Amino acid sequence: MEQYIYGRNTVMEALKGDKGIHKVCLLQKDSGIIELARKKNIPVEMVDKQFCFQAVGKVVHQGILACIEEYKYFEVEEILKDIPAGKQPTLLILDGLQDPHNLGAILRSADAIGVDGVIIGKHRSVKLNGTVAKVSTGAIDHVKVASVTNLTKTLESLKEKGYWVVGCDLSDKAQDYRQVDYNMPVALVMGSEGEGISRLVSKTCDLHVIIPMTGHVTSLNVSVATAVLLYQVHQSRHPL
Amino acid sequence: MEQYIYGRNTVMEALKGDKGIHKVCLLQKDSGIIELARKKNIPVEMVDKQFCFQAVGKVVHQGILACIEEYKYFEVEEILKDIPAGKQPTLLILDGLQDPHNLGAILRSADAIGVDGVIIGKHRSVKLNGTVAKVSTGAIDHVKVASVTNLTKTLESLKEKGYWVVGCDLSDKAQDYRQVDYNMPVALVMGSEGEGISRLVSKTCDLHVIIPMTGHVTSLNVSVATAVLLYQVHQSRHPL
Repeated sequence: MEQYIYGRNTVMEALKGDKGIHKVCLLQKDSGIIELARKKNIPVEMVDKQFCFQAVGKVVHQGILACIEEYKYFEVEEILKDIPAGKQPTLLILDGLQDPHNLGAILRSADAIGVDGVIIGKHRSVKLNGTVAKVSTGAIDHVKVASVTNLTKTLESLKEKGYWVVGCDLSDKAQDYRQVDYNMPVALVMGSEGEGISRLVSKTCDLHVIIPMTGHVTSLNVSVATAVLLYQVHQSRHPL
Repeated sequence: MEQYIYGRNTVMEALKGDKGIHKVCLLQKDSGIIELARKKNIPVEMVDKQFCFQAVGKVVHQGILACIEEYKYFEVEEILKDIPAGKQPTLLILDGLQDPHNLGAILRSADAIGVDGVIIGKHRSVKLNGTVAKVSTGAIDHVKVASVTNLTKTLESLKEKGYWVVGCDLSDKAQDYRQVDYNMPVALVMGSEGEGISRLVSKTCDLHVIIPMTGHVTSLNVSVATAVLLYQVHQSRHPL
């Protein structure tokens, strides 16, 4: 399947990097982009607004697109194998995440804090795509993402390998997220935007944590909550 | 000026609340919405796709809009006056923020953590609008927002009132955000998505903090960074 990324900066970065780009599509002439594409022998095609809309699924204001190789997913085993010896591992599990903006923002935070891998469910979850890439500001090329059919099974197998599975949800047993010492192999589970963590996955968690809230809204944005928790994991491992 | 909010949940919440709604606009019949609007004597208008696009400036998938009173801004003085006696105040200053999604997510976090007010610059900054409202999941109705012409002047006057102005930027003097004890009146300053904090505003800050990052990306999403800092402020004031 063809996969498009868009936005001048995103396409520019991709052209500078060694990502496999099939072609660049432009709504209007852009000499900077055209020159760079020529240098790399990548064909440039002039397209219309309708093409852009269909390629990306929304209005693309700048009209600068690139058709790229599909995003690569990793196997969970590959992710585990690549964790440097002596590093306290952190995995991030996303259960039913829907919004590509949230996935992009989460990958950006995951890269910033050195998450070893992100595992998402194959079904009813957002996939890696151009919007995720754009919002991740390049982190998509650095954070390993696995896509699995059965999250519960994956979590069970991580537990056997010594991981502590920490779910962020409103379970009765949930404790303040600051009460946990995360200086252990951690698989942090975040739920979907509307529904939170699914029942079976929640049952698999060793620990449940909540982020205290004092206002009127009943939840934080999931990418925000993920970052608050990841920086608490960081704090446990690298206290001042 | 007319101001539109959109999305079924957002319009539903607005209809249930006491927000001044002029009319509801629908692409397709929606009996739940229509019934609620009738109860409140709010006219319902059937509209076409083009109307929706022009009202909101993008494709509105559900085609459910409401035309509302313009969002109310507060004066900084009103915000300060309303802070309960004995509460350690927190203000959030947004210097040149551009993206309504970020402002919405920031308002949501600000409400969650009990921020007393958000101050944004009048020029070259995002305004309160329907997208901000939707992303804020209702927090826009609870967090007081002021819009000022001169942020530096406002910060100077806050300093005179005993606030510590803490800027999140990459200044040479910046320290790890966890090194500061925020148990004092705090005005936390966040910069714009591309440029960070402007030079003059940065010079006005008493303290500069950074969030440590170990990966390849050079910055966090601004709404993510804001939440990480706000929860650190919370930690300073309500340690476990």
